[in-house]
Amino acid sequence: MPQEDMKKLLLTSPRALESSQSEPGSPVVGILGTGDFSRSLATRLVACGYRVVVGSRTPKRWSSLFPEEAEVTSQEEAVSQADLVFVALFVEHYSTLTGLKELLAGKILVDVSNSTQLSQNQPSNAENLANLFPDSVVVKGFNVISAWTLQTGPRDGSRQVLLCSDSSQAKSTVVQLCRAMGFVPVDMGRLSSARDLENVTLRLFPAWRAPVLCVFVLFLFFYSYNFLRDVLHPYATEGKNAFYKLPVELVNVTLPCVALVMLALVYLAGLAAAFTQLSRGTKYSRFPGWLDRWLRARKQLGLLSFLCAALHAVYSLCLPMRRSARYKLLNAAFKQVKAEQANSWVEEEVWRMELYLSVGILTLGLLSLLAVASIPSVSNTLNWREFSFIQSRLGHTALVMATLHTLLYGWARAFDPAQYRFYLPPTFTLALVLPCAVLLGRLCLALPCVALRLFRIRRGWEKGRRIRFELPAEYHDGADVCSDV
Amino acid sequence: MPQEDMKKLLLTSPRALESSQSEPGSPVVGILGTGDFSRSLATRLVACGYRVVVGSRTPKRWSSLFPEEAEVTSQEEAVSQADLVFVALFVEHYSTLTGLKELLAGKILVDVSNSTQLSQNQPSNAENLANLFPDSVVVKGFNVISAWTLQTGPRDGSRQVLLCSDSSQAKSTVVQLCRAMGFVPVDMGRLSSARDLENVTLRLFPAWRAPVLCVFVLFLFFYSYNFLRDVLHPYATEGKNAFYKLPVELVNVTLPCVALVMLALVYLAGLAAAFTQLSRGTKYSRFPGWLDRWLRARKQLGLLSFLCAALHAVYSLCLPMRRSARYKLLNAAFKQVKAEQANSWVEEEVWRMELYLSVGILTLGLLSLLAVASIPSVSNTLNWREFSFIQSRLGHTALVMATLHTLLYGWARAFDPAQYRFYLPPTFTLALVLPCAVLLGRLCLALPCVALRLFRIRRGWEKGRRIRFELPAEYHDGADVCSDV
Amino acid sequence: MPQEDMKKLLLTSPRALESSQSEPGSPVVGILGTGDFSRSLATRLVACGYRVVVGSRTPKRWSSLFPEEAEVTSQEEAVSQADLVFVALFVEHYSTLTGLKELLAGKILVDVSNSTQLSQNQPSNAENLANLFPDSVVVKGFNVISAWTLQTGPRDGSRQVLLCSDSSQAKSTVVQLCRAMGFVPVDMGRLSSARDLENVTLRLFPAWRAPVLCVFVLFLFFYSYNFLRDVLHPYATEGKNAFYKLPVELVNVTLPCVALVMLALVYLAGLAAAFTQLSRGTKYSRFPGWLDRWLRARKQLGLLSFLCAALHAVYSLCLPMRRSARYKLLNAAFKQVKAEQANSWVEEEVWRMELYLSVGILTLGLLSLLAVASIPSVSNTLNWREFSFIQSRLGHTALVMATLHTLLYGWARAFDPAQYRFYLPPTFTLALVLPCAVLLGRLCLALPCVALRLFRIRRGWEKGRRIRFELPAEYHDGADVCSDV
Repeated sequence: MPQEDMKKLLLTSPRALESSQSEPGSPVVGILGTGDFSRSLATRLVACGYRVVVGSRTPKRWSSLFPEEAEVTSQEEAVSQADLVFVALFVEHYSTLTGLKELLAGKILVDVSNSTQLSQNQPSNAENLANLFPDSVVVKGFNVISAWTLQTGPRDGSRQVLLCSDSSQAKSTVVQLCRAMGFVPVDMGRLSSARDLENVTLRLFPAWRAPVLCVFVLFLFFYSYNFLRDVLHPYATEGKNAFYKLPVELVNVTLPCVALVMLALVYLAGLAAAFTQLSRGTKYSRFPGWLDRWLRARKQLGLLSFLCAALHAVYSLCLPMRRSARYKLLNAAFKQVKAEQANSWVEEEVWRMELYLSVGILTLGLLSLLAVASIPSVSNTLNWREFSFIQSRLGHTALVMATLHTLLYGWARAFDPAQYRFYLPPTFTLALVLPCAVLLGRLCLALPCVALRLFRIRRGWEKGRRIRFELPAEYHDGADVCSDV
Repeated sequence: MPQEDMKKLLLTSPRALESSQSEPGSPVVGILGTGDFSRSLATRLVACGYRVVVGSRTPKRWSSLFPEEAEVTSQEEAVSQADLVFVALFVEHYSTLTGLKELLAGKILVDVSNSTQLSQNQPSNAENLANLFPDSVVVKGFNVISAWTLQTGPRDGSRQVLLCSDSSQAKSTVVQLCRAMGFVPVDMGRLSSARDLENVTLRLFPAWRAPVLCVFVLFLFFYSYNFLRDVLHPYATEGKNAFYKLPVELVNVTLPCVALVMLALVYLAGLAAAFTQLSRGTKYSRFPGWLDRWLRARKQLGLLSFLCAALHAVYSLCLPMRRSARYKLLNAAFKQVKAEQANSWVEEEVWRMELYLSVGILTLGLLSLLAVASIPSVSNTLNWREFSFIQSRLGHTALVMATLHTLLYGWARAFDPAQYRFYLPPTFTLALVLPCAVLLGRLCLALPCVALRLFRIRRGWEKGRRIRFELPAEYHDGADVCSDV
Repeated sequence: MPQEDMKKLLLTSPRALESSQSEPGSPVVGILGTGDFSRSLATRLVACGYRVVVGSRTPKRWSSLFPEEAEVTSQEEAVSQADLVFVALFVEHYSTLTGLKELLAGKILVDVSNSTQLSQNQPSNAENLANLFPDSVVVKGFNVISAWTLQTGPRDGSRQVLLCSDSSQAKSTVVQLCRAMGFVPVDMGRLSSARDLENVTLRLFPAWRAPVLCVFVLFLFFYSYNFLRDVLHPYATEGKNAFYKLPVELVNVTLPCVALVMLALVYLAGLAAAFTQLSRGTKYSRFPGWLDRWLRARKQLGLLSFLCAALHAVYSLCLPMRRSARYKLLNAAFKQVKAEQANSWVEEEVWRMELYLSVGILTLGLLSLLAVASIPSVSNTLNWREFSFIQSRLGHTALVMATLHTLLYGWARAFDPAQYRFYLPPTFTLALVLPCAVLLGRLCLALPCVALRLFRIRRGWEKGRRIRFELPAEYHDGADVCSDV
């Protein structure tokens, strides 16, 4: 084939669907069903320049609801015109289509349905459709897209379309259609993944469940502990009514504890991974399941820690605004006047507070940077060395500073017997256990002998084996599973 | 054609433009015009590996300003070498190109121009170009891209390129060029959309106009109302000068009212949609235009509500920092000492404030989550069930809590005759009208009989018709037009 | 070729790699090396439906670590099966592959390696690979992607893959592979760019270095200056101990100065550009290097300014919460009682503070909007007129308001001799110099004669030349290099 001809061929036909959309007799997109999804899909396809044929048993009834450019006709007519047919019906009505079997043979059917309940064992809707129409090619997709997104177009946050099919050709055709509509197709493999795709929309923040539960448990524990010490103890021993502290003050001393422990948990995961590798003497073995899940939950743990810290900041800033603070101040002024005390200044108290406020604000600033860096489109602009720098270096600095903030807050109290109400140590000492352990662990890993061994393990070295030549592309180590270790 | 040959063909020619860029005699990209846009475009194309020929009447004058790899030559020379020509001239100079008509026949012309004023009736620049060169194929596009973005590359926020053309082949070629340059092409249909594309850059936040106007009107109303009650009334009746309240205190009581009403407006839209459907007994009829626009403006209304709430929080936190607060406190201490009152504690006042502060902070936290979830790249990671959960469940919770915050703030005041200055009820009671109405409406919709009817309507049921079998893919209902209802 | 045949051809073969993945004897993806990167890559490719063959010298050892679907075999076997081979080895082991030279001839080698140190002169790893295998086609890419991202898939922030190669066909094949894996390929041109690509991951925020340095220097200067005036001066002259101010108060007066100067620097750059153009009488000459770098650093300067302003806000809000504030208030109450002063109200002080607080909050609000608009996915939704409106109009408004905030703060102090400690003027007067200069410069540019000249220069006019007809597509001017001028 001479070069000239080929150029011509390529210029005239780079994309099967697109190139033919305006010529007569060319492939068109069919849609079975006339619901919201169907109408939004038709609107979108027409806007992108496709010829659309909608198939219905009662076409006259519906044509006014579809865009003018779309043809609403009988199912048979629609199916016979189109090479690619969207099936936008309820699953329970798939069987009513069997009469179209012959007309659909050799064509691409796109199953857009969702599950109504999570399941793992039943075949997926798409597989059911494939069984009903063995001579057609089924592509699962678009089920994660809402009618609303289809209608308004993907400009408002271009959304991903997950696709799967056993035929790579059919998938590729749908991928192109997808792109032409402005979506970002993501290939999820074979049709056997359809079950997962159909389950996607039934899941509500699966990655957030364990971390949120963790926050709740920690919050309940620390809140009850503080309630015992700060409200119940003065009431039981002195009959002092401090129940007004429940909504603000108790929450405000509980939140930083939760935030600190959560932040420590983020870095404990990496520490556990490092010690696992050190003790096994290799990195070529999978982590246990719980550790793997923990490592994957670090982002969520970190963001929840930031949320608690931010709430703590707002609660703290509200403290001087309250009536209770005002009354206390007025009463203190009264006492001071009565005691003829011209100056109530206590230098140590002043310094302690200035210092822990200052460290606290800087910690919040660091955590904010970490949170901003985890906005998808921001982290997208970072190379992995930058990402690792932020998550690991800045993160550890934040942990050290948060620990310092807590230590400065409690410096005078830890050794004051009056603080051990009901023999319970002050809350902040409890909250410090985990962060201090993590920081100690990090120091251990920084010892030259341990650090060297870990470095060699991460470069592929194994206990009892000589170094092989086919080492991994370990330059990527920085952003590896254990990057934040 | 044997499989081997086809594979070869495919490996050698998947993309017309790309495959030929380095071979001699292959299609190159031409640019007419030598301005900033032209130069940035040339720089970008050269960086992406394309051969670029720039056409100018005075080529010598300009060659130093273009990248070395780009050839700057006469217009005739440039046009005859290229198969795809960018027209980067002022619209008023399009007619000077008529001499190139024959050379441009059969080639793709990309019109990158913008309008200088909004218009709906005149033909677009691209259509004018198409009329001038009937034998060429005109593609409208790249007008939304700035010279700056072209130059720095799309790494800093990959930007969308809106395209339209009557020829799907030409469009597809430009789509590929677009992708190769790192942009995200969005197909906007036929060349008749060119007018819209040219108007895009003239519009300044069209979706924000009505919501911003709404904020201004509400702010003016509540501010004047508060001015009457809190500043003018004490001045008129007691001669008390409270004008110092204008910059901070009055703004601070006005902002939460605006925020609350705006939040109620967000959910009132969905409510109106639901009641419209209920009264019509069908969902298969379009909403009236105003309701449709209102439903589309919910995101903007919500974000502006969050902005007001956040400003209210900052203003409130500033209150104890002010001189006026300090003076008032000192004077109160003076009075307390003179009155020999050792304890000024008022338990009810303390509780009221602790409670409404606490609820207020949590409301702000919820609204922040809603705001973060509407950052495009974050909402992009949510499936529609999660998105709907956040916007509908969390949103309604925020509305309930904001209402509670206001009620707690005003609990003691609503029934205090002294608060009815000039016979005007306290501001917060006015602000509560709409949110309470919305919450009542929601309760109505939750009544079993109403809820069932609405559910059936949304599943496709219609008054006076039997249920058809071709129901819509209603699993998508959650994120539907009425999802947040 | 009849239309029917062509349609068939196109439907069966739009993409070389995809279309063949499931047929026997079709191209498969090979991977040399068995490290983390290799394993993550294999996992991802398998998940996307590709056939993967991993080549290793000791295949038995590794097969358990790879997904079941991937075949782990000898290097020779792997290379002979695949048409596209990822080289995931350490660079120092590239030479061990020379035995595979003949098997690799004509195939695409993807070099995923990174540099271990920044360099400009040595050949890149990819070029070394290309020298070793002159008969193969080398594509550089995927080095910016971490094993972690490969494994979890690009759903969590779809990441860009930078690619370069001398063969556009090979590049196009890898581009498709890339898309199928869910990444966003960005074409970076010829293989000579490989050095840059390999350096990408070694750079740590190159764009942020100068701006961060600038913040540090400014902070140090203003902090020392404030230390001299507010701490050392009272200590030296009156023996007053004010060292407690170091952690909070001094930082809090330093931060707004830094923020204001940084904000002025953002708009000074544009001003400098405009005056350069005015004095040269043309826009067709490159800016000097320092001005170019400065113009490019505006986003970073602006964000750092916002960070300082936000920290200043939090520090300020913390002020009334401190022990020192409490002690001072109590002592003031004591004094007031002793002086028998019933009312300490000073109307001017009250007004001054209410006004500067109010202006300060609004400034922070504006800066927050600017910061939000620079989140990549948000700025992505703006057309350039909107972007320019936000950056230029809102930005200048913020500068005016920040200047006003500072002036209001200092109105009474600038002319108080007691403020000139050690003959040093108050800090805020120093901080005001640059912003006032910038605002004056802007006013100059707004003078009709200057504005007209600048407008004509930006439309292409040049001193000493008549207007040419081939003007640039200057409608894009708004978002041009000098858009924010």
